[in-house]
Amino acid sequence: MRVISPRMDAQPLPIVRTVAALRAHVGAWRERGQTVALVPTMGALHEGHLSLVKMGRAQADRVVVSVFVNPTQFGRGEDFEAYPRDEMADADLLRGAQADIMYAPTPEEMYPAGFSTSITVGGVSEGLCGDFRPGHFAGVATVVAKLLTQSVPDVAIFGEKDYQQLMVIRRLVRDLDLAVEVLGAPIVRERDGLARSSRNAYLAAEERAKAAAMYAALKAAGARLLEGASVTDVEAQGRAALTAAGFGAIDYFEVRGEGDLARRGPGPIKGPSRVLAAAFLGRTRLIDNLAVANGG
Amino acid sequence: MRVISPRMDAQPLPIVRTVAALRAHVGAWRERGQTVALVPTMGALHEGHLSLVKMGRAQADRVVVSVFVNPTQFGRGEDFEAYPRDEMADADLLRGAQADIMYAPTPEEMYPAGFSTSITVGGVSEGLCGDFRPGHFAGVATVVAKLLTQSVPDVAIFGEKDYQQLMVIRRLVRDLDLAVEVLGAPIVRERDGLARSSRNAYLAAEERAKAAAMYAALKAAGARLLEGASVTDVEAQGRAALTAAGFGAIDYFEVRGEGDLARRGPGPIKGPSRVLAAAFLGRTRLIDNLAVANGG
Repeated sequence: MRVISPRMDAQPLPIVRTVAALRAHVGAWRERGQTVALVPTMGALHEGHLSLVKMGRAQADRVVVSVFVNPTQFGRGEDFEAYPRDEMADADLLRGAQADIMYAPTPEEMYPAGFSTSITVGGVSEGLCGDFRPGHFAGVATVVAKLLTQSVPDVAIFGEKDYQQLMVIRRLVRDLDLAVEVLGAPIVRERDGLARSSRNAYLAAEERAKAAAMYAALKAAGARLLEGASVTDVEAQGRAALTAAGFGAIDYFEVRGEGDLARRGPGPIKGPSRVLAAAFLGRTRLIDNLAVANGG
Repeated sequence: MRVISPRMDAQPLPIVRTVAALRAHVGAWRERGQTVALVPTMGALHEGHLSLVKMGRAQADRVVVSVFVNPTQFGRGEDFEAYPRDEMADADLLRGAQADIMYAPTPEEMYPAGFSTSITVGGVSEGLCGDFRPGHFAGVATVVAKLLTQSVPDVAIFGEKDYQQLMVIRRLVRDLDLAVEVLGAPIVRERDGLARSSRNAYLAAEERAKAAAMYAALKAAGARLLEGASVTDVEAQGRAALTAAGFGAIDYFEVRGEGDLARRGPGPIKGPSRVLAAAFLGRTRLIDNLAVANGG
């Protein structure tokens, strides 16, 4: 008779499909006085997501990771169907990262027949991705509001890679008086600087070789802004650098205010700023951003 | 030395102005295991509102009554400025009705600088008042969502007089997974049948004399529908009755499905229905509705 020795990392990871089951878990934790962190994801997990889970474990007693490819935040012609899905791999990663629950509702659980509510957040959702992905942030705001009211966490953690999204969610939570603290987590990058993204899996080898040029362009822009260069010049140089590196359509390369995403320029920056970019390599749309620490 | 005997009905009624103070009260009740009902109002309280408070007392240990004339649900040219306000009288009535808290936030507390979120509910908010008051139900849905996330009640109680509003709120609560039970309370009427409304105070004496004709028209419509009359005929007769009684512009007189507000007709009703009307007496817009118990 063989004895199979238990693996140390083999934690049980309940995969929960319904709001009712999620609430039963969270309710039991609450009864024990435990705090809860929520990490919303669309699955296809990578090191970036795992850094959010780690932050969640540092901030709360329990970590719920939601895995839901939300159809309402994809526009027509975007990659909803193609978006990478591998629930088994996600569950393994979350087990290793010691998440407490993987909450993976079906589209029917999130949007039952008759669903007809939409949340729009003005201001920070305008411009940048808001201009190129109509309806995207309404889809994000609505699904995030639902995830928050479903799980009622103490903290919710989002990556800074989707910086505009983070700003939209901060505004949403403040405006709807949701009793949750929203935390942003730093971007996790590949060795060459490419921001980790589930969509990097779309990149062909020659595209992947060019992709880190976006981070290089952001870093160069940040350095020039700190030297006092004008926003107008820096934005033009950034777009030129992306084109020179082999990027196709450039949705934007812009300098904005940290926190409020207010336009900067045309002259040198005043106050904390962020450079944000979105551009295509082939059919893959990449986004990235960088804080410019000191706007003088 | 005079001894002043305490009045039996002289309950303390905290008037709370901030979300933080509201949450402190509700949190203390929760710690004692008490349940909470929310009754959202715009003040100018009358017997209709007091019936909601009474229902709240029957449903929960504690009753919060919010009093907030919500600017975002009034359209241009509507009566936001003129809407009756008498906080002292409201507080007296709530004291008598044994509410536990009057929550009367300022507009700045509800909508601080930078506020930019809006919730729209499709489907049930279309047609009827939705056609005549653009943006009204988005204003309602947004403020009610906020009141619910601020107070986190077990039950929330709304009058059936604003029947379409009640349907919008039911949909909102379901769609956003808010853990609250929404209850509708029957319309309270004057002796002649006029539905109680804060706006009845606008009516001049000769308008007031005509106002009960709306309820009479609804009752007549309900009776004819139960006899098998066609929806098309009943709606036309209802509009004619309002005009004959001295009403001015008729926004609608319609037969709709109970619960889903789906159009009925053109023939006889099938299934539970409701007749809803909105029309002007002078500059005052009155609304009312009536359930048609058996749609055969």
